[in-house]
Parts: sequence; C-alpha cells; structure tokens
Amino acid sequence: MSKLVKDISEAIRLSGLKDGMTVSFHHHMRNGDHVLNMVMAEIANLGIKDITINASSIFDVHEPVTELIKKGVVTGIECNYMGGKVGKAICEGILEKPVIFRTHGGRPSDMEKGTSHVDVAFIAAPTSDDMGNCTGKIGKSACGSIGYAFADAMNANKVVIVTDNLVPYPLSDYSISEVYADYVVSVPEIGDPKGIVSGTTKITRDPVGLRMAEYAAKVIDASGLLKEGMSLQTGAGGATLAAAKFIKDIMLERGIVGSFGMGGITGYMVDMLEAGCFRSLIDVQCFDLDAVMSLREDPRHMEVSATHYAGVSGKSAAVDSLDVVLLGATQIDVNFNVNVHTDSNGYIMGGSGGHSDTAAGSKLCIIIAPLTRARLPLVVDRCLTISTPGKDVDVVVTQRGIAVNTKYGKNEELKKALIAAHLPVCSIEDLKNKAEEISGVPAPVKTSDRVVAKVLYRDGTVIDTIKAVV
Amino acid sequence: MSKLVKDISEAIRLSGLKDGMTVSFHHHMRNGDHVLNMVMAEIANLGIKDITINASSIFDVHEPVTELIKKGVVTGIECNYMGGKVGKAICEGILEKPVIFRTHGGRPSDMEKGTSHVDVAFIAAPTSDDMGNCTGKIGKSACGSIGYAFADAMNANKVVIVTDNLVPYPLSDYSISEVYADYVVSVPEIGDPKGIVSGTTKITRDPVGLRMAEYAAKVIDASGLLKEGMSLQTGAGGATLAAAKFIKDIMLERGIVGSFGMGGITGYMVDMLEAGCFRSLIDVQCFDLDAVMSLREDPRHMEVSATHYAGVSGKSAAVDSLDVVLLGATQIDVNFNVNVHTDSNGYIMGGSGGHSDTAAGSKLCIIIAPLTRARLPLVVDRCLTISTPGKDVDVVVTQRGIAVNTKYGKNEELKKALIAAHLPVCSIEDLKNKAEEISGVPAPVKTSDRVVAKVLYRDGTVIDTIKAVV
Repeated sequence: MSKLVKDISEAIRLSGLKDGMTVSFHHHMRNGDHVLNMVMAEIANLGIKDITINASSIFDVHEPVTELIKKGVVTGIECNYMGGKVGKAICEGILEKPVIFRTHGGRPSDMEKGTSHVDVAFIAAPTSDDMGNCTGKIGKSACGSIGYAFADAMNANKVVIVTDNLVPYPLSDYSISEVYADYVVSVPEIGDPKGIVSGTTKITRDPVGLRMAEYAAKVIDASGLLKEGMSLQTGAGGATLAAAKFIKDIMLERGIVGSFGMGGITGYMVDMLEAGCFRSLIDVQCFDLDAVMSLREDPRHMEVSATHYAGVSGKSAAVDSLDVVLLGATQIDVNFNVNVHTDSNGYIMGGSGGHSDTAAGSKLCIIIAPLTRARLPLVVDRCLTISTPGKDVDVVVTQRGIAVNTKYGKNEELKKALIAAHLPVCSIEDLKNKAEEISGVPAPVKTSDRVVAKVLYRDGTVIDTIKAVV
Repeated sequence: MSKLVKDISEAIRLSGLKDGMTVSFHHHMRNGDHVLNMVMAEIANLGIKDITINASSIFDVHEPVTELIKKGVVTGIECNYMGGKVGKAICEGILEKPVIFRTHGGRPSDMEKGTSHVDVAFIAAPTSDDMGNCTGKIGKSACGSIGYAFADAMNANKVVIVTDNLVPYPLSDYSISEVYADYVVSVPEIGDPKGIVSGTTKITRDPVGLRMAEYAAKVIDASGLLKEGMSLQTGAGGATLAAAKFIKDIMLERGIVGSFGMGGITGYMVDMLEAGCFRSLIDVQCFDLDAVMSLREDPRHMEVSATHYAGVSGKSAAVDSLDVVLLGATQIDVNFNVNVHTDSNGYIMGGSGGHSDTAAGSKLCIIIAPLTRARLPLVVDRCLTISTPGKDVDVVVTQRGIAVNTKYGKNEELKKALIAAHLPVCSIEDLKNKAEEISGVPAPVKTSDRVVAKVLYRDGTVIDTIKAVV
C-alpha cells in the first residue's frame, strides 16, 4: 500500500474535485510558493471551474490567480492575508464574490466548527513519506513550522500532500500524521528557497524606528509585565525587532527569564531563547533560516497548529496566555480600531493574520507605527477597514507620542504608570492632530458601494467590508 | 487564565458529570495506575451513579471497580484488555450490562466515528502545564508514549488532565495540546513507578520458548520478508523477544536495515534501533524504562496516537504498512481463529489490544504459542472466544510443529517456502492431535447463556460474545 500518485493531475482526479468546490493551501512557502500555482494550473487544465481557493495567505507570487479568475476557474477567495498584486485586482472588482478574510485563529476554528468547508486540501510538505507523514523541518524547501496546515489536514474531505523530498516510510519526526493524508505527490520543487524564508531578519537602523522601539520597550517595562515568566510576540518588522532588542537588554540586565516568545518566529527570537530570555518558543511559522534550524534542533522550540496558536474552537489557545504583543498598523482611528488590510488608497495589501487574535488574547497590545507614511497620517477619524477592533488595543506608540486607550473602561492605571515613567503620553486625538500638521488632511479615498471583501473577526462574525476603489 | 482546579472532586463537578454518563481512562500507567481508582472513588463520594468506564485497559490494580459495580456506581465497562481479577468477577456475573471489548485501533476509531461517546476523559499525565499541554516522556511517573489517550483528548466532551508533575507554561515537548484540555488537576502521585514500566524486559531461557523463537525467525526468513525495509512488531513476551533476537542476528549478519519496529516498545526494540536494524520505532506504549528513555531522547523513536498506530477511521494507520507481527494466543482453533480474551476455564484474562489490528494489517501474522499449557491443548475445534478471526492469521508456530493457514485461499506459496526451508510444517489438525496426545481432550468449559461481554472487531462489529462461567 502506498498513497503515492503519478502527478498533481492524477491527485486532483482521484480527489473527486468538481466544479463549485473549495480547495485549500497553507502559506509557509510564502512568496516562494510553487504549489498553489501548480495545482491551480492543473485544475484549469482539467477544465474544472467555479473553484473557491481557501489559502491561509495569498502572496504576490500567486498573481496568476487573477488570470484564472478572468477565465472562471476561480470564483472565490478566502484568506487571512493578501499581498498587493492580487489585492489591487480584487479592489478593481475582478472577482464577483467578495473575498472572505479571516484571522489566523479564525480560519482553523471555522473549519473545526464546520462554518468553513474544504473539499480538497493541498499541503506543501518539504518532506513526506509515501503514506503522508510530513514535516516542514527538513528538506531542500524546509520552511520550519507548518502550523497553518494542520486544520486543513484534519478537516478537509480529501488531503493531498505535495512534496519535493520523498523519504522512506516512516518519517519519524512528522508534524502531520498519515492519518489525515489521502494522496502523496512528488514534484521537482514545491518552492523557491529564496522566497520561502529570508536569509536573516534585520533590526532597523532608522532613527524613527529606533525611537518607537525604545518607547515600546519602556511602555512594557512601565506596565509591570516585564518580569519573570513574561511572554511576548513580535512581528518581523524592523521596529518591532528593535523593540525586542531593547527588551532583551533589560531582561538580561535584570536576569528576567520569560516563559515564551511566540508568533511567526525570527532568528531574533531564537537569539532570545538561546540567551535565556525565554524558556520556550511557540512557533506557527518560521520567518527565516535561523528559526527553521532552531525548530529542527531545539526541543524548547515548539511547533503548534494555528488552532493551538490562536484559535477559538479549542479549549484554549496560546494567545490566551500571552502577556505582550507588538503589532503594526497602516491606519488607526480615534477609537483605536486598526487597519492592516488596506493601504491609504483603499487597496488591499495585507490582512489580519494573527493581528486581532493576539490583540484579543494578550494582556498588553501595543501598536507601533510612524505618525505618517508617504505623506499620509497614521491616525484618522475612521479606519478605511477595521481589522482589529479598538477594544483589543491598549497602546499606540509613535515617534511623536504615545496614546493609551482608556476609551473602553480600562488602562487608567497603565496610563498613570506611563506618565510616571516620563513617557510622552498624549491622547489619540493629539496624535491625529500632530499627524495632520505634518501631512495635512488627506482627501477621502473614493470607493463604490460594491463590496469586494468581507473581513471576519476571529469568531466568524463580519467586522467590516472592503469596497471597490473607484 | 489557568485551567488548574483544586482537586479531582472539583474537576468532576466542573465537568458536569452526571448519572448515566461515560468516563474514559488510558492505560499507560499499567498496573501502577492510581488515576482510575482515585477518580472513581471521588465519583462515588459525590454520589454519582450508573457510570460507564471506557478504559483502554483494565488491570488488576483496578480491582476496586468491582466494589463500585456492587454499589451501582459503575454499571458499564468498555476496554481493550481486562486483567484476570476484574475479569473473573465479570465472568461470575457481577455486571448486568455486557462488557464491551474493542481493539486498540477500534477504540479510538469508534470515538472518531461517533459510535463511542465519552462525556469526561481523565488523562493521567506524567507532566503537564496548567493549560493542559502534557506528555508522558518526563516526570517521576514517566511512562513514555501516551498514544492511547489522544483519541480521548480529541473526542471527549470534557477533558481533565491529572498530573503529578506540574511545570510552568508552556510545556514545549508536549504530546497532547492544550487545545483539548478543560481542567488540570495536580495530585501527589498518578502512579507507582514500579507498576508503570518494568525495569527490563528479558528474553526467555526456556528451551521450548527458544525453539519456538528460532522457528519463528526461520519462518520470517523463508517468507522472503526479511529484507531491506522490513517492518516488525513483537510483543513483550519472552518467546517473541527471543524471536526478535534471532531476527536481529540475521539482520546484522546480512546488513539488512529495516524500516520500523512497532508496538508496545521494549528495550529490546530500542537495542535493534540503536544497532541499525531499523530506521525508526513507532510507539503507542512503552513497556520498560529503556523505551521511555529512548522515546524522550531519540528523534527516530516516534510517539503515535492509537489511531495512527492501528485505527480504521483515519486515511491509513501504521499497521497497514506492517510486514510481520509476532503474536501470542491462549487458544487457536482449526479455522485459525485466535483467543486472547479468556483462559481455558472460560474466565476473562486479556483482550485484543492490538492483536487483531496488527493481524489484519500485516503481511505475515505469526502466532507463537506452546502446544499445551497447564495440561490443556493450545489447538481446539472452536475457540471459547474469537478475538482475532482466522482469515487474518498466517502461521502458527509451536515447539512441535508449524501450521500454515491455507484455509482462506492464500499462503500456498508460503507453505511451499517453509517446507523448502526444512521447517516442521504440519496441518493445524496435526497440531491439535499432537496437543491432545499430550494433554488429553479437556472437558468443555461450562458457560451459561448469559452474555457477560461482547467482543467488537476493529470495525465495530460484534465478532463474538463471552458467556458467564457456571
């Protein structure tokens, strides 16, 4: 018995994929992913139409999808993040049915609750055996964690493992079990290593970024959370990495050992683990090669499913135990709602990812963003798109001031603590005024009434819609 | 947020356990288990009645259950194995409702298919954090794999983790995720280490056992399966371990590298892994301390769920890739049906465990058993209880002859190969006659019409019933 089939076309035929069905993909191959395009090209070749793609993220490398939309092969897209290339086409109205945006926690939980059905999941696996025991830890296309793919494997009707490193049965250090795999396909290359992970992640040297980073570290310190057992999630952006550097210095100086670092993991978090700042790392996605290596070698570095990371369908998720998260924003409004979906011209160029999951779960959610970008203000009266609701945001750090969110009956003590720490605390309205002094009040983005995307909160409810740009 | 509750009583109350419900337990603590008795005593204290216990196995240490049956606290038992003490009471008619016997693969699969519902699972965890990430690999009560508990955790309505080694969050090398845990209870001792695992497993020195072992190794060699990539499951019995020793010698002599050793894992299988006889071990349960240590330290030694090991509800299980299994029997009949449930007096003293799962999945299923035991013949006209159907058995090895099962349209080539290898091949009827020459024809066991247990095959169908002993 073997589940190995000849090629992707054969796997699609065996899976019973038909017009109108939903296929799913995970995004650990990031902008180096070959699998989504390979599979969708075969689906088109087989004459199958009206397919919905449920991908944990859509990157610029997936731009060929726009051609498949025009041909009627693809008629629906669901994702947690969408890069600017496909995003622009969506905002120009290429797809009739609105895109469904979820969060990294909401996506697996919707599958588990049965509110998101996947007919055939295609799982890019850097290493697999012929029965479908697979992992991202090893192989020429190693991406580390494949945490986003667990829910697809466990909930899709049929599961196809696509690998470029077929190994003899059994693969002992498997992440996803053969229990879930229907077919295995061996292909020459599931991704371009250069696009899968960046070589190294770098801390910003930009003075604005460094100032924000320093402020953020001081906010955490003043909050009282920077103590034994502290847990932290940072993104891979230069300013949040710089903030992690300041936090690391404080932890080492004071001999503080945190419980865990979490998130998409970078080499910088690995350094903190190895320096003794954390007891463990909780990893749903690796951002660079150092993170991949660490996940493979260090038992303190844990791979978790997206449900374990941030879901709402389990009995708990790691975000529920998170102390501090540092997040970005393209816009934030005077009610502290955050936009990470659309740019200031109204075009989709992002998505929640784990933004609203970690904001909701953490004790202290800090948004770090420069007061203006490309001569447009960060703070506005109402975000063009609400990605994360204001009630889950605690502090906004800019280079020109720090706003504490006391609008929802909390954080009064925190505000006093930041003032006592001589941090430049001001109101969110002050930040808005300062931003508008620099960049002026921008002309409103012109959108039509047509909804091109719905943004679902982690519980599956619609939190906002995105309209076509005129 | 923490899931830690004060004590077992509190966990039971929070779980909502009520009269008539089903609770589940796993058996990796084996005859050293404290958890089943502790929990059931608290359930009795709370005045809850009419409870069904679904335990992967019932050992002699669980004898207090018989008192709870008399009091009406326990009115149902479901398990894959039952030791002689509780088994005797069952056969004497203590429990009104028949015991449900499943296989190690059938039990989790019935949970996953929804044909076996568990209200509250109690999981003995040698190490856990306060959110329920838990493992059997470390802690003073370390038992290694907790593979049988995965299905309980994933399918029960409420899940209580009972640990005697509570560690700070997060436990990085977890086996069961917090996603599945509702409550965590810390107790002084979940088990007696002396009963959990044996210190070492020993190869038989008995000449009868050694002869059978040598025959079994020769049967495997003659079958053509003893080659590169071979996979093998043996039990922990002295004769099967001795067979493994002969197989190991052949593999090392010829430079054969097998794919995997599987099963309940002993130190002997670990030796074979370390000697290069296998590339990996697939482990659903550790039988001794060497196996526990190896699972903890060696990434080639894989922990798997019972579904992954032997289930029928997944897309595949490891037993489907198994070449050879060496199994025991208390009786075998002329149609090659095997009894591992009842002794020759009709009393329950065992169960399928993985017997019929591995028999069904393997290419070559060899039963090793002495021709007579306690002056009773091994081979009979009809087994008192059918545990594994004859169609899944290939060869019976005794010290006085080897019977090849050609009754179901297979194994003719195998029979020729064994004869060509000068092995003492005879018919199953010959074995029966030889046994009866030694021990005489035993008086039939007297049973009443009352069914005290139903034996379910791995697919959930009833394969046999066990009657009360008169």
